[in-house]
Amino acid sequence: MQISSAALLKASSAATTPPTLAERYRAVRQASLALAAPLSAEDAMLQSLPDASPAKWHLAHTSWFFEHFVLGTQPGHQPLQPDWQVLFNSYYQSIGPAHARAQRGLLSRPTLAQVLEYRAQVDQRIGDCLRAGHLDAVARQHLLLGLQHEQQHQELLLTDLKHALWSNPLQPAYRDDLPLPTPTPAAGAAVWIEHPERIVEIGAPAWPAHARFAYDNESPRHRVLVPAHALADRPLSNAEFRAFIDDGGYRDPLLWMSEGWARVQAECWSHPLYWDPALEREYTLGGWRALDPDAPVCHLSWFEADACARWAGARLPGEFEWEATAAACPAAGNFADAGLLHPVAQPSLGAGAPRQLFGDVWEWTASAYGAYPGFRPLAGSAAEYNGKFMCGQYVLRGGSCATPAGHVRASYRNFFPPAARWQFSGLRLARDL
Amino acid sequence: MQISSAALLKASSAATTPPTLAERYRAVRQASLALAAPLSAEDAMLQSLPDASPAKWHLAHTSWFFEHFVLGTQPGHQPLQPDWQVLFNSYYQSIGPAHARAQRGLLSRPTLAQVLEYRAQVDQRIGDCLRAGHLDAVARQHLLLGLQHEQQHQELLLTDLKHALWSNPLQPAYRDDLPLPTPTPAAGAAVWIEHPERIVEIGAPAWPAHARFAYDNESPRHRVLVPAHALADRPLSNAEFRAFIDDGGYRDPLLWMSEGWARVQAECWSHPLYWDPALEREYTLGGWRALDPDAPVCHLSWFEADACARWAGARLPGEFEWEATAAACPAAGNFADAGLLHPVAQPSLGAGAPRQLFGDVWEWTASAYGAYPGFRPLAGSAAEYNGKFMCGQYVLRGGSCATPAGHVRASYRNFFPPAARWQFSGLRLARDL
Amino acid sequence: MQISSAALLKASSAATTPPTLAERYRAVRQASLALAAPLSAEDAMLQSLPDASPAKWHLAHTSWFFEHFVLGTQPGHQPLQPDWQVLFNSYYQSIGPAHARAQRGLLSRPTLAQVLEYRAQVDQRIGDCLRAGHLDAVARQHLLLGLQHEQQHQELLLTDLKHALWSNPLQPAYRDDLPLPTPTPAAGAAVWIEHPERIVEIGAPAWPAHARFAYDNESPRHRVLVPAHALADRPLSNAEFRAFIDDGGYRDPLLWMSEGWARVQAECWSHPLYWDPALEREYTLGGWRALDPDAPVCHLSWFEADACARWAGARLPGEFEWEATAAACPAAGNFADAGLLHPVAQPSLGAGAPRQLFGDVWEWTASAYGAYPGFRPLAGSAAEYNGKFMCGQYVLRGGSCATPAGHVRASYRNFFPPAARWQFSGLRLARDL
Amino acid sequence: MQISSAALLKASSAATTPPTLAERYRAVRQASLALAAPLSAEDAMLQSLPDASPAKWHLAHTSWFFEHFVLGTQPGHQPLQPDWQVLFNSYYQSIGPAHARAQRGLLSRPTLAQVLEYRAQVDQRIGDCLRAGHLDAVARQHLLLGLQHEQQHQELLLTDLKHALWSNPLQPAYRDDLPLPTPTPAAGAAVWIEHPERIVEIGAPAWPAHARFAYDNESPRHRVLVPAHALADRPLSNAEFRAFIDDGGYRDPLLWMSEGWARVQAECWSHPLYWDPALEREYTLGGWRALDPDAPVCHLSWFEADACARWAGARLPGEFEWEATAAACPAAGNFADAGLLHPVAQPSLGAGAPRQLFGDVWEWTASAYGAYPGFRPLAGSAAEYNGKFMCGQYVLRGGSCATPAGHVRASYRNFFPPAARWQFSGLRLARDL
Repeated sequence: MQISSAALLKASSAATTPPTLAERYRAVRQASLALAAPLSAEDAMLQSLPDASPAKWHLAHTSWFFEHFVLGTQPGHQPLQPDWQVLFNSYYQSIGPAHARAQRGLLSRPTLAQVLEYRAQVDQRIGDCLRAGHLDAVARQHLLLGLQHEQQHQELLLTDLKHALWSNPLQPAYRDDLPLPTPTPAAGAAVWIEHPERIVEIGAPAWPAHARFAYDNESPRHRVLVPAHALADRPLSNAEFRAFIDDGGYRDPLLWMSEGWARVQAECWSHPLYWDPALEREYTLGGWRALDPDAPVCHLSWFEADACARWAGARLPGEFEWEATAAACPAAGNFADAGLLHPVAQPSLGAGAPRQLFGDVWEWTASAYGAYPGFRPLAGSAAEYNGKFMCGQYVLRGGSCATPAGHVRASYRNFFPPAARWQFSGLRLARDL
Repeated sequence: MQISSAALLKASSAATTPPTLAERYRAVRQASLALAAPLSAEDAMLQSLPDASPAKWHLAHTSWFFEHFVLGTQPGHQPLQPDWQVLFNSYYQSIGPAHARAQRGLLSRPTLAQVLEYRAQVDQRIGDCLRAGHLDAVARQHLLLGLQHEQQHQELLLTDLKHALWSNPLQPAYRDDLPLPTPTPAAGAAVWIEHPERIVEIGAPAWPAHARFAYDNESPRHRVLVPAHALADRPLSNAEFRAFIDDGGYRDPLLWMSEGWARVQAECWSHPLYWDPALEREYTLGGWRALDPDAPVCHLSWFEADACARWAGARLPGEFEWEATAAACPAAGNFADAGLLHPVAQPSLGAGAPRQLFGDVWEWTASAYGAYPGFRPLAGSAAEYNGKFMCGQYVLRGGSCATPAGHVRASYRNFFPPAARWQFSGLRLARDL
Repeated sequence: MQISSAALLKASSAATTPPTLAERYRAVRQASLALAAPLSAEDAMLQSLPDASPAKWHLAHTSWFFEHFVLGTQPGHQPLQPDWQVLFNSYYQSIGPAHARAQRGLLSRPTLAQVLEYRAQVDQRIGDCLRAGHLDAVARQHLLLGLQHEQQHQELLLTDLKHALWSNPLQPAYRDDLPLPTPTPAAGAAVWIEHPERIVEIGAPAWPAHARFAYDNESPRHRVLVPAHALADRPLSNAEFRAFIDDGGYRDPLLWMSEGWARVQAECWSHPLYWDPALEREYTLGGWRALDPDAPVCHLSWFEADACARWAGARLPGEFEWEATAAACPAAGNFADAGLLHPVAQPSLGAGAPRQLFGDVWEWTASAYGAYPGFRPLAGSAAEYNGKFMCGQYVLRGGSCATPAGHVRASYRNFFPPAARWQFSGLRLARDL
Repeated sequence: MQISSAALLKASSAATTPPTLAERYRAVRQASLALAAPLSAEDAMLQSLPDASPAKWHLAHTSWFFEHFVLGTQPGHQPLQPDWQVLFNSYYQSIGPAHARAQRGLLSRPTLAQVLEYRAQVDQRIGDCLRAGHLDAVARQHLLLGLQHEQQHQELLLTDLKHALWSNPLQPAYRDDLPLPTPTPAAGAAVWIEHPERIVEIGAPAWPAHARFAYDNESPRHRVLVPAHALADRPLSNAEFRAFIDDGGYRDPLLWMSEGWARVQAECWSHPLYWDPALEREYTLGGWRALDPDAPVCHLSWFEADACARWAGARLPGEFEWEATAAACPAAGNFADAGLLHPVAQPSLGAGAPRQLFGDVWEWTASAYGAYPGFRPLAGSAAEYNGKFMCGQYVLRGGSCATPAGHVRASYRNFFPPAARWQFSGLRLARDL
C-alpha cells in the first residue's frame, strides 16, 4: 500500500493544535519520503537540467542540511558520512567544496537505500536531541530553517522530476493515480480589481528576532508607496494564453524583451513548455491530459509571461502590488496537499475578490529580485541561503500546486531566472490606473 | 591642425543663449566628427567586443537614425543609400532586418570616407529641411531624439574604442595630447550624508507631451517612498578599491553574488579592467598612466562594485536614493567637454555637500533596470529605443568623463549588464540608517 | 554467489570443440549479464561523457540489435517493445530516429529489470528460431554480427563505467574482488625488432562472402608495401611514460601536435587520465592502486601517445607495420577473460619475439582511420556500422584487458578520436630504419 | 594606374632564363603588393573567420618571416620593430609568444602604411645582404623557404579576403576588372583513366640536402604500392554537383560521414559555400556571376566532396593515386598568374589524357594528412612549419586558380580540416578496379 503524500503533507501543516517542533519535523520529513515513494532508484537519479537535481540528491541534501546546521553544532558530533559532505553541500562556500551542480546525476553511490538510511539516522539523532532537550535556541532556529528548506526541496523534487520524466521519449507519468480535478463552474472572465496609491507595509519582521518564521529576503518589514493600479482577480488561463499564441504572439518581436526574443528564436519556443504542438494537450505529473481552457496557464518563462501581458495591453504586477492585495487573503489554495499536483480552474468569488493568489501557479512579477532596504542576511553560513542570488532573477509570488501547504505567505519571495520554464509558473495581469 | 573635440562639444552644450535646433544639430554632429578625427580608417573599423561597435559604425548609424526617423518621413524621400539600411539599423525590428551586431567590424565597405560623405549628405538635407521649415512637430521631436541618441553614441564611440585599442598588444593611446588633470587638494575621506525617509518625485514628465526632453524610460514622473539612508559624498576612490583588493576581496566568495563569483573565477578577475597586474598603472584614452589614488575607481562591473560595497560594510545606492540627492544639484562635472576623458579627484565641497554626482564615472546602483509605473514607450519604431532592454541590466546614474556635457540630468537612467566593465563605471557607497 | 564474468567469457571463446551458434549466442549473452552483475540499477544508469553510454543502455541496445537485424526479418515478427525502438537505436539513420546520444543517461524507464526481461525475451525467441532452424543464411550472418557487436559493447560497458564511477567524488571500485596480477619477473628494457621493406597482405577477405568473420572495415585483403622499420617488443611502460612526464613532456609544445597542445592547455593535462597528481597511484576497475612501473601505460589519448613517442626519438607504428608483425602471432594475451581488467607487465619472450601485441592495452597507431582500397560496406542498414566513422579518428590495434578473448585478430581495427582517453589505450614505439 | 598582379606573378615564375635569388625575391615580394593593391586599408583589416587572416597581417607576417629567419641570423641585427614580434609571429612557439589568431583583425596599428614601410625596410636589407654576399647557405635556404611561404600566403590572402568581402551584406567584388574566361568547347563527359597496381616513387628528396625545393612534408621520397584504380580525366563540374543536389544529396544521411552529416544539419548546408540559394549564381572575386555548368565545382568541404563521390558510385582518390598520375604531367594550368582567379572549364585533351590536375581547384583526396615514413622536420624553428599539423586534416593536391604559378608540383601536399569550405577546393572522382 502506497503512502499518500497528500495526507502526510496535510498532517505536516494542518493540525488543529499547533504541532510541537518534533511533530513538525516528523511530518515534513515523512512528506519528502511520501513524494519519493513512487520513484524507483533509477527515477531518483535523473537530472535533466543543469539547474535541476535528482530526487535522491534532494533527499540527501536536505538531510545534510540538518546534519550540518543542527547536529553539527552538538558537542562531540562526528559526521555520519564524512565522504558525503562534498556531495550534498549545494553551494555553501563557507562550509567547504561542493560537487558540481550539473553533475549531481552522476552519483549512483550512495545508493537510494543508503540515502534513506542516512535520512533515518539523521532523524533518529534529531529526535534524540529534541527529546533530550539538547538543542539550544540557535539549533532550534536552524531546525526550523531546515524544515522550511526541506519544503522548498519538496517542490523542486516534483518540478525537477517532471522535467526529467518528460525528457524521456517514453514520457511516463510520475503517478498514474493522480486524481483529476472536480469539474467546477466556469472560471469566467477575469475582472480588474482597482487599488488607489497608498503606503503599504511590505515584508516580514526579521526572523529569528521576531518569532514568526520568514526568510531573510522578506525582511525587514518596511514601508513602500504602492502606486494606483488594477490587478486581475485570477491568473491568466490556458484559453487566454492560447489567444496570444493564435494572434502570433510567439512571432512578433515587438511584444518581447530583446533577450527574450533571442531565446524564442534560438530555442524555437511556440507554446508553453509542456504543451503538445497541436496545443491541445499538456504533460502533467499524471501524464498527458487534455488542456483545460479555464485552468491557469503554467510553465511559462518570465519572458513569455511578460510578452503575453504586453500583448493583452497590460503588464506584470509589481511584487508589492501583489503583496498588498495578498496580505489581506488567507494563504489557502490548491497546494500540493490537495494531491492534484496541477493547477485547476476556480469559480469567481464575487465582485472584487481576488482568487488563487495562493497555490495553483507561482505568479511572475515585474520585480527583479533584490534586497529590501535594511536587508541583513542570516548569521553564519546561512547567510548564503538567499542573499547571493539577488541578481539576474525575477520574483514569483504565491506558491503553486506543488508547494506544500503552509509553506508560503503573502510576504514570501520565490525567484528564478527569466528564461526558466520548468517551475509551475504563470501570471496574473496588472495595469496602471 | 586637429579639431578640438572638447571645444566642439562645449559649443554643442554650453551656449549662453539657447541655441536653435539647427545650431544644436550642427554642434552635436560636429562633435562626433571631432571625436573621430584622431582615428585612421583602420582604427574606425575596430570591434573588440560583441556588444561594442566600430567608430565608423557609430558615425553611420547615428546618420541612419536621422535619415530614417526625420528625412524618411518627408514626402518623396528616397533612401540615400538603399543598400546600407540593413548595415546601420541597430536593432529596430519594426524597421527591418539588421546586420548581426557581432559582425559590425566586418564592414570595410562603405569606407570611412563614404560614411563621412553620407553624414554630410544627411546634414545637408536636414539643414535644408530646417531652413525651409519643412519639419513638422513629430519630425522635430525625432530630430531632437536623434541628437540625444548621437550624444549617447559619442560616449560609446570612446568606450568601445578604448577597449579596442587596449586589445591590441601595442596598446596605443587614442590621443597622445590629452591633458593630465590639474593637481587638486586631496580628495579626503568620504563623508556620509544622511537622508530621512521621505516621499520624492522621481523621474521626468513624459516627453514630448512635456516640452523638456527626457527618454521614455525616465517617465512618468511619479512618487516614490525613499527610505532613510546615507550616501557617501563622493565616489569610491582608487585607493579605497585597492584596499579591497589588498584585503583579498577578489578571493572571498562570501562578498560576491553567486553569478559574479563564477565570473571572477572563469575570467580570472583580480583588479579593475584597465589596471596593470602590479596595481600601479592604468590604461587610459591617453595611454598608460600612474593610478591616482584619489581619483574615482573606474571600469568596474556591477559585480565588483557590489562586492566592494559589501566588503566596506555598505551597499550600492538605490537609483531613487541617488536621484533624490542629485535632483538638487546642478548637472555639472567632469564631462567629455572638459577634454580629460578620464575621471579625476575633486576636493571636498564642505560638510554635507555631495560631489561628483555628475561626470567622472557612471555610478552603479542597486536597482535592476525596469519600467516605472505607467511607463509608455515612445510611439512608432522609437518604442524599441529603451523598453525592450528592461531585463537583466542594472541602472547607472550621473554620466561620466566620456559623456557629452548637457546630455545627462538627475532623472537620466543608463543601463548595462552586471558583468560589463568597459564603460566608465564606478560606484558611490550607501548604507541604511 | 556472484557469477564470474571471466569464467563465462572464457566459456564463450575457449571451448575445445567449436561451439555451435546457439552455444556461442548463449555464452556471449551471458557474459554481458555477468559484467553487469555487480551493478545496481543506479550504477547501470550512469553516463559521464557524451560519447559514453550507461550499462543499461548497452544491455538494451545489443538486444535491440538482435531484435532488429535477426528477429525483425522473421515472418510475422511484431516489435517486442515498439516504444523502445527509438531509445535503443544507436545511430542507424536508415532504420529510424534515435534518442540523442548525450541523453542516454536520462532513461530511468525502462528499468534495468525491464531491460533484463527484454533481453530474456529476445534470447528466448532467438533460441526458438535457432532450434527451429528458421534462420536463413542472412539472419545467421546478422546473428554472428550481433555477437561481435555485443562483445564490443562488453568492453565499452567496462570503459564507460570506469569513467562514470571515477567521476563520482567517492570513486568507488567496480568490483572490490578483482585479483591483483601475479608478480612477474621484471619486464626489462624494450628491444627493437627490425623489419625490412616488404609487400604484405593486409586485412581480411570480405565476410560473409568469406566464411571467417571480420568487420567490413578490415576488407578487402590487399597488398601493401610496408617500409623498413623497427617495432618495440613490448608496449611502453608506466615507468617510461613517467620519464616523459619528469622530463617536462606535458610542458613542451614542440613535442605535440598543435591541436594536442591546445588540448593540453585547455584541459590542464599533466598525466594519464586515471593517475593521481602525485603520479604514484592509478584508479582501476578494482579501485585505487599503486602504479606498477613495469605495466603498460594506459588511458592515453593519441595526442599523448604521439608526443611521448616523439620525445623518445621514435614514432607511433603505422597500422600495417603493426599488422605485419601481429599476423604471425597468436591472438592471445591479457584479455577480459583473465579477470584482471587491468594491464599487467609480462616478462621478455626472448630476443626478437614481440610480446603483448594482443590484450593489455589497445595500441594507438599513426594511421588515420580510413577505407581500404576496394572497401565495400556491409549490405543494408549494417552499412552504417563502420563506414560512416572513417573520418577524424585514429586506428588502435590488438585489444585490451577489457576486450573479450576471441574478439580481436591481427586485422582488427578499432578507432577513436585523438583526444579520447577513457579507453584502455597505450602505445608501442616504432622507428624508421 | 593599377599594377597588374597577374603580370607580376608571371614575372616571378616564368622568366626564360633562371632568375637569380634576388630577382625571385623581388618578384615574389612585388606579387604580394600587387595582390594587395586593390585593397583599402579597411579591406586589409578584415578577418571573417578565426582561421583566416587580414591581408595586412599576411603582408606583415611574411615580412616578419624573412626578418626572423634571414636577417635575424645576421651579425648585429636589431629587430626593426621589436614590439611587432608578437603580433606577426603566427604559431612558432619556439620563437616566442604569438598574438591570438582569432584576434588578428583587431590590429589597426601598425597601419597598412606602416606595414608597407616595414616590408620596404625588410626588402632593402635583404637586398643589401644579397648584394653584399652576406648570406650563408642556411640563410639562403631560409630565404628560399620564405619565398615559398610568401606564395602560400598570397593564396590565403585571396581566399581569406573572398570570405571577408562576402560576409559583408554588400558583397562587393575584390576587383571589378577581372576578365571572364574565354568561352571554350564544352568540357564533355568525364572519362575514366585506368591504372594497374604498381609500385611508385612518391614524394620529393629532402630539401635542402637535395637542391630542388620541396617542403619537409613531401619527403622523403619513398616507394608506395598504389593499387589498381581509375581516375577521372577532369575535376567534377558544377553541373555534376548540381545533379547531386537535385537528387537530394544534402538530405540523405547515408551518403555522408557521420560528422559531416552533423555539420550539414547544424549549419544548414544545401549547396557549395558561395552559391546563391537558387543555384544559379556564385560569388567570385569578381563579384556575383552566373554559374558555368562546365567549370569545376569549387568551395566544397571534404565532407561534401566525399558525399558527392559516394553518391556518384565512386570515391575520392588517394593522394598517391593522384601523385602517380600527376608526376607525368607538367605543373601547368589555370593558376593565379592567368589573372582569372576563378576555375574554368577546359576541353578534353583526348583519350586517356588527364586535364586540370594543376590549377583551377585544389582536389580533396581520401588521404588524411600524416607523415611519410622517415619524415624529418626542417631544422630549428622551421620544424614547426608543417609537422605539428599532421592531425585531423585531409590532403589536397594540385593547386588552384589562386595559387601562384610555379608554386606547386606533383609532390606538393596542401591540407585543411574536413569542414573547411573557403579554399578553392573541389574534387576529382576515382574508383577501384
